Amino acid sequence: MASLNMLGEKEIIRIIQEELDIMPDLIMGLSDDVSAINMNGKVAILKTDMLVGKTDVPPGMSLRQAARKAVIMNISDFAAKGASPLVMLASLGLPKELKERDVREIAAGLNEGAREYGIYIIGGDTNESSDLIINCSLFGFCDRKHLISRRGARPGDILAVTGEFGKTSAGLRILLEGLSAPQEIKSALINAVLLPRARLNEGLALSRIGGVTSSIDSSDGLAWSLYELSDASNVGFIVDYVPLAEEAVKFAGIHNFDPIDLGLYGGEEYELVVTIKPQFWKAAKRAVSKAGGSLIKIGTAIKEKKVELRIGGEKRPIERRGWEHFSG
Amino acid sequence: MASLNMLGEKEIIRIIQEELDIMPDLIMGLSDDVSAINMNGKVAILKTDMLVGKTDVPPGMSLRQAARKAVIMNISDFAAKGASPLVMLASLGLPKELKERDVREIAAGLNEGAREYGIYIIGGDTNESSDLIINCSLFGFCDRKHLISRRGARPGDILAVTGEFGKTSAGLRILLEGLSAPQEIKSALINAVLLPRARLNEGLALSRIGGVTSSIDSSDGLAWSLYELSDASNVGFIVDYVPLAEEAVKFAGIHNFDPIDLGLYGGEEYELVVTIKPQFWKAAKRAVSKAGGSLIKIGTAIKEKKVELRIGGEKRPIERRGWEHFSG
Repeated sequence: MASLNMLGEKEIIRIIQEELDIMPDLIMGLSDDVSAINMNGKVAILKTDMLVGKTDVPPGMSLRQAARKAVIMNISDFAAKGASPLVMLASLGLPKELKERDVREIAAGLNEGAREYGIYIIGGDTNESSDLIINCSLFGFCDRKHLISRRGARPGDILAVTGEFGKTSAGLRILLEGLSAPQEIKSALINAVLLPRARLNEGLALSRIGGVTSSIDSSDGLAWSLYELSDASNVGFIVDYVPLAEEAVKFAGIHNFDPIDLGLYGGEEYELVVTIKPQFWKAAKRAVSKAGGSLIKIGTAIKEKKVELRIGGEKRPIERRGWEHFSG
Repeated sequence: MASLNMLGEKEIIRIIQEELDIMPDLIMGLSDDVSAINMNGKVAILKTDMLVGKTDVPPGMSLRQAARKAVIMNISDFAAKGASPLVMLASLGLPKELKERDVREIAAGLNEGAREYGIYIIGGDTNESSDLIINCSLFGFCDRKHLISRRGARPGDILAVTGEFGKTSAGLRILLEGLSAPQEIKSALINAVLLPRARLNEGLALSRIGGVTSSIDSSDGLAWSLYELSDASNVGFIVDYVPLAEEAVKFAGIHNFDPIDLGLYGGEEYELVVTIKPQFWKAAKRAVSKAGGSLIKIGTAIKEKKVELRIGGEKRPIERRGWEHFSG
């Protein structure tokens, strides 16, 4: 019988779903980024996400940064769904070698991440464990009409993202593989990994305009997110532009990487990837800009279920890969 | 600087609390068993609890039972506070050696525990980790006036519990230390550990009568729970009766244990420990009986902050001990 490192995360989730009774009248559940239940008109939104030290904390990331990241991971999923976070619970599994100051750093990082997005940590649990485990559970609200699933993309919709890609990909190569980078770009690349930001203002703004048909964050990489939207919405995508951070392009040049690959097959990035009805495009751009961000068109949803790159006359399939638990 | 195995769980929680901003108008937070926030008159209740394989799963407990127990741990805290659970999220940390059938067992155990108490698991997360980690986060509601904290006990209140003690203590000694027990009591003792039940009906019934002044479950043992209530309410307790399960008394006789010690210093038990205003005692007993349980008077709250046993003329202090993470 297959053990977990052969199954992959998606298959594990499928097995779990098979064993669970499905709640009647559930609005959103295990197959989307958050769970949503109806509460007298309003929708209550819940999300839990576990950070495991050995897989989610690259070398060079402090405990404070790891704890902050555990918060950001959850906030980002709320951002993608258009839900306002309110309060968070944090469960900790702490290796017994940790010191008092380590616990303080973890708590301070949790608080820092929460307060950046206006929420509070109001409860939790602590345990001894072999790995560092930081499990955050986020709770908040949404108007039913503002909640954006992964499923609504239709052929013809505009595919857009909230920022440039490639920095975390480069940063991870520096942190994990020890690749070099000149001083003037190194800290930008590393900080993209160590100090991620969730696009909460952008996500909330997008959810209010009414024409966003599907949304996800890019925490598993842009390519992976496109396949998730493609599967959930049963559409394909033509990508005709991959916005790349200047520092990532420089890094790619130095190491002879394809910069577009850096942008597509990253991870640990928290940009939003959304589809928008064309007639709402201007309103969406304006709303995100007003929220302090930018919305960049990268392609179009198509009927045929494929994910393809078309840049400068060149045409090639985008691969379904990105970072996944249990796969390595 | 102290490492965690010298600090103890209470001290770790204190350190964490120091680093967290406190949410204004929070109804219940890190110093109680659940978190509670005001939501237009109603109160939203949140709780997260992590089960770690190596500390929370005794030998002999199946994965299915461990997962079910992870649910019960959370339900029991809702029961103690008088809150109705509604939905649950489950985050899993799975060692990579696990097989597909193990994942199925875990999911089935989660579902079993949830459905026993009428709730559904609506979301979660899976990760690879060294230990087995099952983190459940429970969400539900309560009327503000029904929510029972740890803080309200006053001198003169009746101290009561919802069942007998000692079975889990004996069961853990069989499972962990290999002690023997005759066949006719062995399975009752072991099953008390492997298949715990939360006193949800009893807790909800008690919360509705209005005279319950404080409440906690006995998951860390009866003695420990008494000290928690004593600290939070700033009262002491005289315990004049420790209700013991027949099987526990037999087990104590065989191994020359003090049966009362078995009852006091256990853990993994999910009886409720409550204080009740004397004029509400009859109503409380009736309400719990109607809910299918029983309420047993074990003592009285007193002004002096001590926890003392007074049985048959004998007087001795109850020790502040019980099972605690990081302490061993």
